[in-house]
Amino acid sequence: MITETPAPKLLVSEWLNTPTPLSLEALEGKVVLIEAFQMLCPGCVSHALPQAMKVRELFPEDQVAVLGLHSVFEHHEAQGHRAALEAFLHEYRVSFPVGIDEQSDTAPLPKTMMTYGMRGTPTALLIDRNGILRRHSFGLIEDMVLGAEIAALLQEAPVTQQKPIKTGNQAGCSDGACPAPSAQ
Amino acid sequence: MITETPAPKLLVSEWLNTPTPLSLEALEGKVVLIEAFQMLCPGCVSHALPQAMKVRELFPEDQVAVLGLHSVFEHHEAQGHRAALEAFLHEYRVSFPVGIDEQSDTAPLPKTMMTYGMRGTPTALLIDRNGILRRHSFGLIEDMVLGAEIAALLQEAPVTQQKPIKTGNQAGCSDGACPAPSAQ
Amino acid sequence: MITETPAPKLLVSEWLNTPTPLSLEALEGKVVLIEAFQMLCPGCVSHALPQAMKVRELFPEDQVAVLGLHSVFEHHEAQGHRAALEAFLHEYRVSFPVGIDEQSDTAPLPKTMMTYGMRGTPTALLIDRNGILRRHSFGLIEDMVLGAEIAALLQEAPVTQQKPIKTGNQAGCSDGACPAPSAQ
Amino acid sequence: MITETPAPKLLVSEWLNTPTPLSLEALEGKVVLIEAFQMLCPGCVSHALPQAMKVRELFPEDQVAVLGLHSVFEHHEAQGHRAALEAFLHEYRVSFPVGIDEQSDTAPLPKTMMTYGMRGTPTALLIDRNGILRRHSFGLIEDMVLGAEIAALLQEAPVTQQKPIKTGNQAGCSDGACPAPSAQ
Repeated sequence: MITETPAPKLLVSEWLNTPTPLSLEALEGKVVLIEAFQMLCPGCVSHALPQAMKVRELFPEDQVAVLGLHSVFEHHEAQGHRAALEAFLHEYRVSFPVGIDEQSDTAPLPKTMMTYGMRGTPTALLIDRNGILRRHSFGLIEDMVLGAEIAALLQEAPVTQQKPIKTGNQAGCSDGACPAPSAQ
Repeated sequence: MITETPAPKLLVSEWLNTPTPLSLEALEGKVVLIEAFQMLCPGCVSHALPQAMKVRELFPEDQVAVLGLHSVFEHHEAQGHRAALEAFLHEYRVSFPVGIDEQSDTAPLPKTMMTYGMRGTPTALLIDRNGILRRHSFGLIEDMVLGAEIAALLQEAPVTQQKPIKTGNQAGCSDGACPAPSAQ
Repeated sequence: MITETPAPKLLVSEWLNTPTPLSLEALEGKVVLIEAFQMLCPGCVSHALPQAMKVRELFPEDQVAVLGLHSVFEHHEAQGHRAALEAFLHEYRVSFPVGIDEQSDTAPLPKTMMTYGMRGTPTALLIDRNGILRRHSFGLIEDMVLGAEIAALLQEAPVTQQKPIKTGNQAGCSDGACPAPSAQ
Repeated sequence: MITETPAPKLLVSEWLNTPTPLSLEALEGKVVLIEAFQMLCPGCVSHALPQAMKVRELFPEDQVAVLGLHSVFEHHEAQGHRAALEAFLHEYRVSFPVGIDEQSDTAPLPKTMMTYGMRGTPTALLIDRNGILRRHSFGLIEDMVLGAEIAALLQEAPVTQQKPIKTGNQAGCSDGACPAPSAQ
């Protein structure tokens, strides 16, 4: 999903690992990787979160922001409270900021997940320096590909006219990835 | 820890993945692998549980029993209720019986963990056909070693005089393994 | 391939990593693992030889013998001279004895390979304490399975009547394994 | 090693996997990855060559050239003839062009290796669209880092003034990497 309009706002009920709430607006000028996950999603735990941690480690913080988004759409009683997520982040040494995707009163999917049309977890979103969503992909990504895409976005100047570099991954869900109910 | 007295009773508050509660007495005649774990222990998730699942797959069920034991000693609010464990077992496709190690009113460690003197999770216990504990090890074990030890126990006849084949692994805790508070 | 007659003699033109030539007769009383390989067979390099090295490390030398057999059936100009094999064994830190399977003047396959009816490399042969071939399998084996089979053979007394414990792996060749021409 | 002068010429005695000899001059306009390796270097086989194959697969051929360079500095009798290398490239499915680094009559290291001051194998060289060497690193590189560096070079226009983006990896040699004699 590529747009030339700004990436939709993150609808987050609480932030962890950050002293103050974050917003995409405040991050403009940086390339932003958002990793939407669930703490009980095997592919998130084994692949997507370690990959996001590697991005955090390999790219400079003043150029690339890495955010987690806990987008719980199932097992709410197990994953849907802050204490569970805090314990998880502690045990898995996830130290970048993580927002809890706001639950909806009326829909089964949390609000940011719905707004972005995410198909499940893990989903990676890449947002350029001008706040435009440039990659939206469900499932696993090669480290080499993700590194290349972030580097390409880093080379772009802020506030210029953007061209999409890559269409979103529309392929079927990989092993360990969790498609959301409406996406199946 | 090797003994010639029967392995202590499992003190379990609830059983999952089994229609009826289990006991070591009822399993006598089989070799029993017990994998003590916590759902938020990284080494349990990445190594010990997949290994126990491989044992389940490779050895015949009428000869080798594989049990999980959810021995929660930290993050009780996240791991310490049945719904959380059920969601975890579902997502990680753990289908062998799992007992919830009974919490103590007075001690920080659950009761089976205390009785066996476990140092943390993951801990693997191997019990022979006569109900004698033959291996107790904290941390990760090589697949080849575990396969060899189970096969050796399978060759022993029930109700004969046993000799310990291997001293327990007393080595320091590996990456990802969680030492219990009193064990540190 | 299971037999109750002794495993055929190894037909070896030269031995490396051993001061004196070896023979199955001289190894009787031990369980013997023979790993037939080629230095340019990817599955041998990435899986079978590291596995044989792990067997060497985990089982006692006075109970389990581990031998390599360099059974060259292709790329003779690259693999078929002693200096190439020596360099390979040095770089990959293979320190157990390795025999060079004797080339035939008349057939494309080396002699031991032909005698045993091997289908390619890697092939693992397990020989019991009485010199009887108990496993013959082409391709990759799980560490847990190989550990279990060796341990089971270790429990058997020498010079007793043997029963086959396992039929050979007749499954199709795995990735990286090299079927010999006549076996394709 | 970063320079603003053109990367030195490749001194190659023979080319494989290409109908005509290659030269850096002829590749100008493309980003070039050169992977210097030896067929009996474990780190080259397990890591560097698969990584170069992944680069070949993930980046477009008209933008990124991937070359192997067989820089033999030891075990000449095993690795130092064309037939051995051909067999190796065939078995490991290496299909990009590979040059044989020209042996010197007077020095132990082959000529390109010496000219570039390589410390051993694997060594990765990254050359930009203008023929300037931008990375020279001995040992293993993270996929994410290599992907990012290639992407960054791809964004640069040819024939402009270049700035070095990264100093060469001067760290000690990793497991499996082979330092050349003069580099030890």
